[in-house]
Amino acid sequence: MTMPTFPVPVLDQLSRAIFQACGASEQEAAIVAEHLVTSCLMGIESHGLMRIPQYVELVQEQAIRPRSNMVIEEETVTTAVVDCALNFGPVGAIRALEVAMDKAHRQRVSCVVTRRCNHAGRLGAYPQRAAENGFITLAFCNSPPHGHFVLPWGGRQARLATNPISYAIPSLPHPILADFSTAVVPEGKVRLYHNQGRPLPKGWIVDAQGHPSTNTADFYAPTMGAILPFGGEMGHRGYALSLLVEIMGGMLAGYEMTLERPGNGVAFIVIDVEAFLPSDRFAEMVEDMKRYVKSSPPAEGFEEVLLPGELEFRLREKRLREGIPLDEVTWKQIKKTAAALGVKLP
Amino acid sequence: MTMPTFPVPVLDQLSRAIFQACGASEQEAAIVAEHLVTSCLMGIESHGLMRIPQYVELVQEQAIRPRSNMVIEEETVTTAVVDCALNFGPVGAIRALEVAMDKAHRQRVSCVVTRRCNHAGRLGAYPQRAAENGFITLAFCNSPPHGHFVLPWGGRQARLATNPISYAIPSLPHPILADFSTAVVPEGKVRLYHNQGRPLPKGWIVDAQGHPSTNTADFYAPTMGAILPFGGEMGHRGYALSLLVEIMGGMLAGYEMTLERPGNGVAFIVIDVEAFLPSDRFAEMVEDMKRYVKSSPPAEGFEEVLLPGELEFRLREKRLREGIPLDEVTWKQIKKTAAALGVKLP
Repeated sequence: MTMPTFPVPVLDQLSRAIFQACGASEQEAAIVAEHLVTSCLMGIESHGLMRIPQYVELVQEQAIRPRSNMVIEEETVTTAVVDCALNFGPVGAIRALEVAMDKAHRQRVSCVVTRRCNHAGRLGAYPQRAAENGFITLAFCNSPPHGHFVLPWGGRQARLATNPISYAIPSLPHPILADFSTAVVPEGKVRLYHNQGRPLPKGWIVDAQGHPSTNTADFYAPTMGAILPFGGEMGHRGYALSLLVEIMGGMLAGYEMTLERPGNGVAFIVIDVEAFLPSDRFAEMVEDMKRYVKSSPPAEGFEEVLLPGELEFRLREKRLREGIPLDEVTWKQIKKTAAALGVKLP
Repeated sequence: MTMPTFPVPVLDQLSRAIFQACGASEQEAAIVAEHLVTSCLMGIESHGLMRIPQYVELVQEQAIRPRSNMVIEEETVTTAVVDCALNFGPVGAIRALEVAMDKAHRQRVSCVVTRRCNHAGRLGAYPQRAAENGFITLAFCNSPPHGHFVLPWGGRQARLATNPISYAIPSLPHPILADFSTAVVPEGKVRLYHNQGRPLPKGWIVDAQGHPSTNTADFYAPTMGAILPFGGEMGHRGYALSLLVEIMGGMLAGYEMTLERPGNGVAFIVIDVEAFLPSDRFAEMVEDMKRYVKSSPPAEGFEEVLLPGELEFRLREKRLREGIPLDEVTWKQIKKTAAALGVKLP
């Protein structure tokens, strides 16, 4: 089945119009639209345009508050807590990133975290943008208890969210970009298998009693199952990374781990490469690294050694030329949302 | 077979005496002895007292240069490159950590990397010390090409070192401390199996042709095999973390990845908790996290949910009381080294 594809400007325009129609400023609408379109371009559909109906609904429930006044709290020369005031998640997280980049530009290193940040979307979007501005960035994103789907190592009841980590390194034609969950998989992936009626690969989940399972129904049972931390037999490492995400994304903003609340907690560490060496020299070194790593002959089943993010950036190129495919369900939902807001379809 | 055990002060004294006898200052000898003894206390024998003969040999070859003059280069208010001048690895890395803590104390966040740092030993030692001083610290440690035992994801020839990552979080009675390789295992662990003539678990190594193997001889063949990146079927994540270690530990110090040289490259990101919230409030939150995570009932085969580092700190308590066990080979080698330097045995 081929999906209908849409030119990028069409989807971008439509998304902006929808978000403006539900109360976002022109600038806010542009940020959210760009976030969702880019996620689709890079193949991360789960954080792409399928979120439009959800975000609009949240605005109508006043859980997302367009045009809210975001303020910087607990500020020092190198650090800040940005109160995102329940604005759209990407608007809040971009604001925090801008504060972090500004501080790193002035002071060389910064650490900025968010308060009251809504669903931040694709975490990699933020380090990616910072890398395009010459910064090395580490990013962490936690979720409050309602997102605690993941086992602590050695336990059989979930206590952690899927807590992704991302980093990006400046490079041309695009950054080196890693973005992954500290759980085996994000919950959305389990849901995808569930909706498709497919069994899960081994090693992804346990049932409510903590027994390994490949049945998605065990995960979504009335007493829920749980996702394993990343790392298989060495899952204590994924668990350790997950706790780091919790501390950076939650605690530094003043949130106890057990405190229920909406949205995500995002944290950025931003480093100015130029504090250490000229950026053109750094760029040469990164090229040396790329060449060296890629000179490893491919393993069976692989065509080449890739850098983190390379596949996604290739897909972006392709989709920029050929358009973004959307499945029928998503497209129907977007059309319905647009119609309800009186937004004309392209 | 029970191993002879030795009281901590005896081993500490002996180690100091040996290092001073081969040229270290009193302070340098104390730092290296403390590093090796603590590694043994915490059960990380591979970075413990078995290193004494190796370090002394390296001093005699002038590869380690006691009393060398370490200097700060490329300094900004928040960043520095510390030239460790080929002093003992722990002496150089502790110096870099001190610079990083001083900057984080003044500016709230810092990032410090090393140049000409010898074998840094147990990476977790540094974040551990910083956490005891109230700082959150992330640490990265790379190795030059002679340590490239690890496959890049999708490749069949090694291009990366085992590149550990560590972090520590202030907490009482001891920090939360994670310290692990971004490869499935450090090379030393493969060597241990090799020396014991045991087959490796599946999923650790490939032979020179890139085929999975459990035979340590395939790893140590004339054309060497390679260790897999951490993560099993999701080894692209371990690979991505490894590249981050390479960039932080190597490139920011000005070293190309392909440049052969001795020692390790260590990088620290240090964050002052007090920039975000009072440290006693943070401590309460960490306690809340510990309670919550530990309230997950144990999975089959586990007695309880532990925090990163907890087992190692328990072992430290036990060995502080009962002494440090040393195997016969290690003890014999240490005695031989001491005798050659004219150091009296306890």
